[in-house]
Amino acid sequence: MDKTVKILDYGELGLIDIMGSDDAIVEAARVSYGKGTKQVSSNRSLIRYLMRHQHWGPFEMAEMKFYVKLPIFVARQWVRHRTASINEISGRYSEFDMSEVYRPTTFRKQSQDNKQGSSDSCFSYEIQSYDKSQTEYSILLNKGAAKELARIVLPVSSYTQWYWKCDLRNIFNFLRLRLDFHAQYEIRMYAQAMAKMVKESFPLAYEAFEDYILNSVTFNGSELRYINWDIVDGGYKVTIDFEKAKEELGKRELNELRMKLRHVAQ
Amino acid sequence: MDKTVKILDYGELGLIDIMGSDDAIVEAARVSYGKGTKQVSSNRSLIRYLMRHQHWGPFEMAEMKFYVKLPIFVARQWVRHRTASINEISGRYSEFDMSEVYRPTTFRKQSQDNKQGSSDSCFSYEIQSYDKSQTEYSILLNKGAAKELARIVLPVSSYTQWYWKCDLRNIFNFLRLRLDFHAQYEIRMYAQAMAKMVKESFPLAYEAFEDYILNSVTFNGSELRYINWDIVDGGYKVTIDFEKAKEELGKRELNELRMKLRHVAQ
Amino acid sequence: MDKTVKILDYGELGLIDIMGSDDAIVEAARVSYGKGTKQVSSNRSLIRYLMRHQHWGPFEMAEMKFYVKLPIFVARQWVRHRTASINEISGRYSEFDMSEVYRPTTFRKQSQDNKQGSSDSCFSYEIQSYDKSQTEYSILLNKGAAKELARIVLPVSSYTQWYWKCDLRNIFNFLRLRLDFHAQYEIRMYAQAMAKMVKESFPLAYEAFEDYILNSVTFNGSELRYINWDIVDGGYKVTIDFEKAKEELGKRELNELRMKLRHVAQ
Amino acid sequence: MDKTVKILDYGELGLIDIMGSDDAIVEAARVSYGKGTKQVSSNRSLIRYLMRHQHWGPFEMAEMKFYVKLPIFVARQWVRHRTASINEISGRYSEFDMSEVYRPTTFRKQSQDNKQGSSDSCFSYEIQSYDKSQTEYSILLNKGAAKELARIVLPVSSYTQWYWKCDLRNIFNFLRLRLDFHAQYEIRMYAQAMAKMVKESFPLAYEAFEDYILNSVTFNGSELRYINWDIVDGGYKVTIDFEKAKEELGKRELNELRMKLRHVAQ
Repeated sequence: MDKTVKILDYGELGLIDIMGSDDAIVEAARVSYGKGTKQVSSNRSLIRYLMRHQHWGPFEMAEMKFYVKLPIFVARQWVRHRTASINEISGRYSEFDMSEVYRPTTFRKQSQDNKQGSSDSCFSYEIQSYDKSQTEYSILLNKGAAKELARIVLPVSSYTQWYWKCDLRNIFNFLRLRLDFHAQYEIRMYAQAMAKMVKESFPLAYEAFEDYILNSVTFNGSELRYINWDIVDGGYKVTIDFEKAKEELGKRELNELRMKLRHVAQ
Repeated sequence: MDKTVKILDYGELGLIDIMGSDDAIVEAARVSYGKGTKQVSSNRSLIRYLMRHQHWGPFEMAEMKFYVKLPIFVARQWVRHRTASINEISGRYSEFDMSEVYRPTTFRKQSQDNKQGSSDSCFSYEIQSYDKSQTEYSILLNKGAAKELARIVLPVSSYTQWYWKCDLRNIFNFLRLRLDFHAQYEIRMYAQAMAKMVKESFPLAYEAFEDYILNSVTFNGSELRYINWDIVDGGYKVTIDFEKAKEELGKRELNELRMKLRHVAQ
Repeated sequence: MDKTVKILDYGELGLIDIMGSDDAIVEAARVSYGKGTKQVSSNRSLIRYLMRHQHWGPFEMAEMKFYVKLPIFVARQWVRHRTASINEISGRYSEFDMSEVYRPTTFRKQSQDNKQGSSDSCFSYEIQSYDKSQTEYSILLNKGAAKELARIVLPVSSYTQWYWKCDLRNIFNFLRLRLDFHAQYEIRMYAQAMAKMVKESFPLAYEAFEDYILNSVTFNGSELRYINWDIVDGGYKVTIDFEKAKEELGKRELNELRMKLRHVAQ
Repeated sequence: MDKTVKILDYGELGLIDIMGSDDAIVEAARVSYGKGTKQVSSNRSLIRYLMRHQHWGPFEMAEMKFYVKLPIFVARQWVRHRTASINEISGRYSEFDMSEVYRPTTFRKQSQDNKQGSSDSCFSYEIQSYDKSQTEYSILLNKGAAKELARIVLPVSSYTQWYWKCDLRNIFNFLRLRLDFHAQYEIRMYAQAMAKMVKESFPLAYEAFEDYILNSVTFNGSELRYINWDIVDGGYKVTIDFEKAKEELGKRELNELRMKLRHVAQ
């Protein structure tokens, strides 16, 4: 297996190994249901049923292993997904390759309404401090400094590498969070590349994931108190008590509701 | 701390210890946001924000420890929640107390439309096989059989006991699944008792859990394809293309959609 | 892949799928060490080095999936290994096959010196209570009882089935604990069968596991205080201050020390 | 509770909250053993028994929560302990405090015999690249760059902060690995401070941990093949077949054996 794609400037995502397939997910599910599953007509229906009802067990029966080359600040977000196995290159053992640092030339501006996000507007800028850090790393190594200590001058944009192995349930959880537009652009690029590989390897499971997780819209109990569904001829008349909602939910939550309604009404 | 409630016939749920409080959740969240959280006006708002956006981290900072006495078949469902710590009485080490076995006198009938559930109708019945099993357990012990082997004749309705310690994030996940009407009645009784204890110990977090998780309704992407939201004066006219939905979603999924609509239109 | 072995009377262990190999473990390890591993001469040396120093990461990169048919009381011990994925047949969904219950005809006697173990002496006995339980299960089903409720009369020796998927690191941990003679005989039979399959699939890793984990002997700090190593010609003169050890360690711990010494002096 | 100690130059370790005590560990253990534990004379004996036999369950029943301020390169080692909960300050949300960067003035030299360690010899050096990185961080923020992007120029020696909550079993595992002299000096300083806090809060458990884990010596099966234990008057004559061991174990493993023998013969 040798599918590697380039991400950012020096990043890579390579699919190393797969355990299982859509069929294997189905096979595992049929163990749970014993002789009782004859009626579910097809693999596709069964996989969609499992995803719809968040019966995650059978999705844990599939596993994927990736090679990833990624900046340290991305690795720090990634590693928070604890249900996975990692083998990372050791900066105590190996020297960093200083020719490869994430070096954007266009910088996204701070979002005004999201305190932890970026806006769409950008400016050009060339990073200058890397040279100094890298020179100092070399000086320290030349003076005989321990690698584990010399590396502390390197920026968090330095690339690291690892093998990452994860079951499909937890890969879907990774994708749900990291494909989202709230995720930082840099990790989203990895998530998008990974999503393609998952889709190719598990087409039925991925389709179900898109339909039932990615593209779903949840109205919470708080919102539903201000949404009136009146039965009318051929459907419902839905009205939102914006005045009361604004008062009780607050401005921020009301905006979230508006965005959802806009989304479903597209 | 000594709050123990009775569950089923011989079952118990006791709250042994708590780490944290609503305040501690807030305190942990404020670490994440550094100096940037001044604007969120209150603890309640912040906790609701965290729950609404599934920022689970701060909820992991609270922990509860319970003593539970429960039938083995309930324990087998419970133990599938892996992110928790358990100390169970050892049937290899201690003799089972045979006077205490779960002994319902009313039996729920098999649900017709849910292959793994019960219906509302019941019948009376007195279990007779327990005596035989218990007598045989005694005989085996009297003959000098190892306790680890003698116990194999006991029914899965025998009571076991354990300490169960879990963080609040995973307790909410337990409750979400086990308070649901699809969960088996017996484990639901424990979940209901636990929910009360959580509500008392973490009133703000529990309120948010009810609003944003328990009482939410999710329309998935598959359903949204057949739900049309037309903007009309004062809100939306929502129509569902039942014909097409029936054809493409199938009968089972269509029923699920109908139930959701009935729920939101109440 | 179709390797299934019989365990106990109706039990089975089947190897369903494997991810990785000894080579894949080595490949993952070499990522950690970057360009620095040229000097380790062979795969075997590297795997042994990893195992000796408990660098478990690369062993997590291999995964095995098993089909298991096992009595419920064994399943209850097994499931305590939390870092694994399970898909179990649902007793709420499927009827138990009552012709298959673990039915030993020879019973091990209670160990005198180990409160949770068996001794070597046995007696013959034919279990009689199963018929009653099974008849009652049938009666309940015939009366229309929900399957989830009818099953509570069945003994913990009833067979269940599951898929169990686990990485090699955690499989070794399972084997370390369940191959031990303190483990209950019944689960040990599964561990022994699994060990053979692991050995066949990962011969180098398994050899290292035997050498560095299974066959190791640990002297703890408490014991070392009473073991004197005097350097003598060609080695050491080792004397144990049994009097003082007995006084301070107590009888039980002293016995454990004696057993270790007997083992290494074989 | 307010116990905070300083680590390195700007680092901190503060104990925020505790669940449980030595007594609570004992209480949990007694659930496992039911009525059968009367004979174990004292809490101390029981805790030592549990630790000696690696019955970790009761140690999971205790929990500690720490506030930690630590350099990013230390955080990256720390976070590999997956069985713990973390709430970290978000560099996407908050600006880094640039006045605080880990700035050693003495550098350890690379170890000659350990490719990932430091030696005892040092040299003086003043880091110069930090100023450049920090100035550039300010420039980027002033230009309106998103915080999530501006931070990429900062060195891995920048301090981050988090709440870290972990059960006592996994704290002991953290300490076992991070107190070891193979662990990098910087994380070892945190481990040492944590060890003191654990010792104060759980004196019996910590004493057992020292005796049975930290101060134990393990001879593996491979080594035992070359160690002959001959029973002599009053003990054993232990001889090591160094010639054969060197040939078959190799130089590296033989050195490890020599170090162990030197340790026990002290």
